[in-house]
Amino acid sequence: MDLYSGPINKLISELSTLPGIGEKSAGRLAFHLINMPQARVERLANTILEAKNTVRYCKSCYTLTDSDLCPVCANENRDHSTIMVVENVRDLAAYEKTGKFNGVYHVLHGAISPMIGIGPGDIKLKELIERLKDDTVKEVIIATNSSLEGETTAMYISKLIKPSGVRVTRIASGVPVGGDLECIDEVTLLRALEGRIEL
Amino acid sequence: MDLYSGPINKLISELSTLPGIGEKSAGRLAFHLINMPQARVERLANTILEAKNTVRYCKSCYTLTDSDLCPVCANENRDHSTIMVVENVRDLAAYEKTGKFNGVYHVLHGAISPMIGIGPGDIKLKELIERLKDDTVKEVIIATNSSLEGETTAMYISKLIKPSGVRVTRIASGVPVGGDLECIDEVTLLRALEGRIEL
Repeated sequence: MDLYSGPINKLISELSTLPGIGEKSAGRLAFHLINMPQARVERLANTILEAKNTVRYCKSCYTLTDSDLCPVCANENRDHSTIMVVENVRDLAAYEKTGKFNGVYHVLHGAISPMIGIGPGDIKLKELIERLKDDTVKEVIIATNSSLEGETTAMYISKLIKPSGVRVTRIASGVPVGGDLECIDEVTLLRALEGRIEL
Repeated sequence: MDLYSGPINKLISELSTLPGIGEKSAGRLAFHLINMPQARVERLANTILEAKNTVRYCKSCYTLTDSDLCPVCANENRDHSTIMVVENVRDLAAYEKTGKFNGVYHVLHGAISPMIGIGPGDIKLKELIERLKDDTVKEVIIATNSSLEGETTAMYISKLIKPSGVRVTRIASGVPVGGDLECIDEVTLLRALEGRIEL
């Protein structure tokens, strides 16, 4: 139904294709954009285009960056013998925020999920194996999510790398710090039990 | 913290100023935009600019449109003697969707709210009074929201217009169709009782 004028309808339908934005939010966003000062709207549109045009993969770890190497890979003070493998750029950022990991990363851009047809060839796995060829890497820490897909991917990578002699580890799963036991699911509780350490 | 490269951080901070988009959704949106095909990103940016540049107020009812008069005001088959006053363009669209209202509209672009400093001069009220001057208008139906601000605005408009002899009505408030009485708040229940009609 053409309730609004052409350009508004077009804008609403474009916005509602974005993730997490339904038809109602798209309408609200569209009217907000139309009521925003001209200069701010132009800045937003240009920022979108600029990000799209300048951002590319780091040629080493495949995170998103605006130069050949991302700041982490370009930093000689980081420990280039330890690679943490993550599913996506936001997971990398989450670990980087802790400020405690001094190694480098490898971003898979996804996880193996036969259910939706994502195989090992659809994520940056070949590129990880390539990085292990020159003998600088001593340990690969697999920090994929603790979901079915993340675990499948972790198992797959571990089987692939182990024969080469590189140490392969997996981040621990268990009760989150500050977590209340009664609110935590059984699988996590059992994982926490299996992974118990000596005090 | 500069977790991502400059253009990504800029995009995330621009997106998170939009209504209903927090920092996390902004991150998700930003990466989605960066991974979208170039042509689609350009189309989105252009659609935003085009909507901003071509959309303006209808010179009669003040809805948003891309021509001098909106399709409703330009339609000679609509009943121009009945004006429905709404708070915003989305409320207009909601009534227009019913397909049963044949009059025209007036969009206030807000409601009187002394709490946040919005007075009668901040909404398109002068413009409504202006429309009543040429004697074509016989009835003004006030369809502002049933909130404190909407009711205040309705009362204010009614007091302003009544002396001129134009009929002023207010849309009914009561139990929504299909509404379950036990889930409805007391104020609405009392309104429904007060507004009861003969069967």
